[in-house]
Amino acid sequence: MPQTSDAMIEVTGFEWVPPFARGHVRDLRVRWALEEVGLDYRTRLISAVERPEFYFGEQPYGQVPYYVEGDLHLFESGAIALHIAEKGKGLLPRDPTGRARAIMWLISALNSIEQYVMNLVIIDIFSAGQEWAKLRRPDAVAALEKRLGQLSTALGDKDWLEGAFTVGDLIMVDVLRNLRDGQLTIPQNLAAYVARGMARPAFQAALAAQMADFLPDPKGDDA
Amino acid sequence: MPQTSDAMIEVTGFEWVPPFARGHVRDLRVRWALEEVGLDYRTRLISAVERPEFYFGEQPYGQVPYYVEGDLHLFESGAIALHIAEKGKGLLPRDPTGRARAIMWLISALNSIEQYVMNLVIIDIFSAGQEWAKLRRPDAVAALEKRLGQLSTALGDKDWLEGAFTVGDLIMVDVLRNLRDGQLTIPQNLAAYVARGMARPAFQAALAAQMADFLPDPKGDDA
Repeated sequence: MPQTSDAMIEVTGFEWVPPFARGHVRDLRVRWALEEVGLDYRTRLISAVERPEFYFGEQPYGQVPYYVEGDLHLFESGAIALHIAEKGKGLLPRDPTGRARAIMWLISALNSIEQYVMNLVIIDIFSAGQEWAKLRRPDAVAALEKRLGQLSTALGDKDWLEGAFTVGDLIMVDVLRNLRDGQLTIPQNLAAYVARGMARPAFQAALAAQMADFLPDPKGDDA
Repeated sequence: MPQTSDAMIEVTGFEWVPPFARGHVRDLRVRWALEEVGLDYRTRLISAVERPEFYFGEQPYGQVPYYVEGDLHLFESGAIALHIAEKGKGLLPRDPTGRARAIMWLISALNSIEQYVMNLVIIDIFSAGQEWAKLRRPDAVAALEKRLGQLSTALGDKDWLEGAFTVGDLIMVDVLRNLRDGQLTIPQNLAAYVARGMARPAFQAALAAQMADFLPDPKGDDA
């Protein structure tokens, strides 16, 4: 199992988040990539509630994950996943065209899909019940549905966006799985695509590792 | 000048957009990167108003830019700019750490800054006057100001995010320049950073090339 206490790679995550956020904190993407390529890592856990002041000197926005590998310090889960894909094997094709296409999908997930997903997550979860959210929701759903329909067409009947699994699929699956049951209906082939990604042993190992690192919820209702 | 009719690289842009959008269409990022590294390109212009049906087979979301270089077909301006940075010289450090940090800033611009900028652009421009936009604006401004303050701290008194100009700065500057005068006050060092980016001859050449490719506005009020 890649998570070991004396590993050279250190990944920073949160020591506690509310139950609804567990399994969705973005260090999951980094753990998943490390599991896929079989690189050991150790975790450093910080408070999400009271982010330590020193941490903003490392990660300007105070977010996780933060990645340390010798002299290399990185933030942005997408950039870290890409770095791991370049360092290990199996997440990035060797041929230049396949490589560029995989990076294209990674960036497409982060820049053309995630903002639509997060807009709906903000409306349904973080701003639930607010008047602006009620007024905005229909257009936000329509915009996301349109985008997901286009992505569904691009995926077609392929297992992965470019045929074989790449770091682009890893990020895309994690972006899409932030949509919760009941928020909207996603196209059947995209739902199967997300399920296929989540069924990978490396994803399951990463998810279990993130869940195991959280302190118990004081309310006792850990999901 | 890199824009030549027989160039091997083809970039797809729009033949017409309303005056307020001119100079802000995302093929600008690709033109800018090509100008920085001195690679020739030609343009193919499509209608933004009635996007041709075939185009969705190339670019799933129907957006520009689309990039063709022999067998390599790419979309996502960030991915294309990164590809150009890897292909040419001057946008990506050779040392692995500097290279990874430049890519980190590119992704940070696309995933941690742009969504906040675009949320305000949607409120102020595309949803101007709508009730939800009025209700949402204060929180959207506060979230963006917080993020810009953090980015300002990270930049400090440096000219560029990692000292020397990289493709990360190219994308970050273009993301930030989507904020228009009067939308909010951006920190002084970030304003100077954007001005520094826009003063680069390659940016100016790219901007002039995009503007020159647009058909005249029928209302005659081209900005």
